[in-house]
Amino acid sequence: MSNYSESPEQISQATNNYVMQQTMLRIKDPKVSLEFYQNVLGMKLLGKYDFPTMQFTLYFLGYEQEIPEGDAKEKTQWVFGRSGLIELTHNWGTETDESFTGYHDGNTDPRGFGHIGISVPDVYAASERFKKYGVEFVKQPDDGSMKGLAFIKDPDGYWIEVLSAQGITDIILSQ
Amino acid sequence: MSNYSESPEQISQATNNYVMQQTMLRIKDPKVSLEFYQNVLGMKLLGKYDFPTMQFTLYFLGYEQEIPEGDAKEKTQWVFGRSGLIELTHNWGTETDESFTGYHDGNTDPRGFGHIGISVPDVYAASERFKKYGVEFVKQPDDGSMKGLAFIKDPDGYWIEVLSAQGITDIILSQ
Repeated sequence: MSNYSESPEQISQATNNYVMQQTMLRIKDPKVSLEFYQNVLGMKLLGKYDFPTMQFTLYFLGYEQEIPEGDAKEKTQWVFGRSGLIELTHNWGTETDESFTGYHDGNTDPRGFGHIGISVPDVYAASERFKKYGVEFVKQPDDGSMKGLAFIKDPDGYWIEVLSAQGITDIILSQ
Repeated sequence: MSNYSESPEQISQATNNYVMQQTMLRIKDPKVSLEFYQNVLGMKLLGKYDFPTMQFTLYFLGYEQEIPEGDAKEKTQWVFGRSGLIELTHNWGTETDESFTGYHDGNTDPRGFGHIGISVPDVYAASERFKKYGVEFVKQPDDGSMKGLAFIKDPDGYWIEVLSAQGITDIILSQ
């Protein structure tokens, strides 16, 4: 790091309109992952972009309520201005490659990325529904000392925290 | 996965008000990471939560413009309803532990998580400013075939894509 510094006003001005746009996770099989993120978690597929020369496809999903009309250019620009999207990267062929051993979730060595997290109105109701879909749990809402907080796994094993704003506040304020 | 299924209307109703709330990354040194995310990227620190019995602290950052007044309970509930936040987890002691070898960015084996991405009005202007702060680049905006798209590293080595909605749309539509 250099010793360059700016005032709070300069920082605010220089980073005006910055958006935390995406979190990218590699996936083995888009058919399985799209079913999970769309049907189980209720996200919408906002964009699918193929890169044939590099043999991969990107899928962008999020909790947008209204997807605007428009041509490909307008729609794509809209997608990349949205906040809090999931970007799933599918390198072609992994879904049928028997030598492919899967992706690393970051929660065993070597550790790094931990999880994504979704805020829901009712963690218990959400968890009961996820069970019907056969979702794997890392932590059921009543496991351990942090009651009302769950962790599930996506199809590649990435952890997803399932929290409610009220429930996690109670946990935090009791520490 | 089970064979449980719901109609699009049922899925929409069951997942109503779900929010993609957080992306959690482990960090070595909060002093260094907070300077980066606040001063370089211009995010605001929305919440800091200590868990003394488990010896870790969570920092939540995001591009919220207005942080509401309120007591600890109101503010915490507000934080956990926001979309697209970064959650930095600091396990106490790593910042001074000489045997700590750092976190894994997910882009070398074993791969998994790839990056977070921020959408900015002008990738070239953003990159020039990041250089003044001494930020390390994985890809300068004019490196390679994808012009106008940059990748930088945060203090732990996690990749951050720096894109503009217009620039990435031009790249995608030229594939």
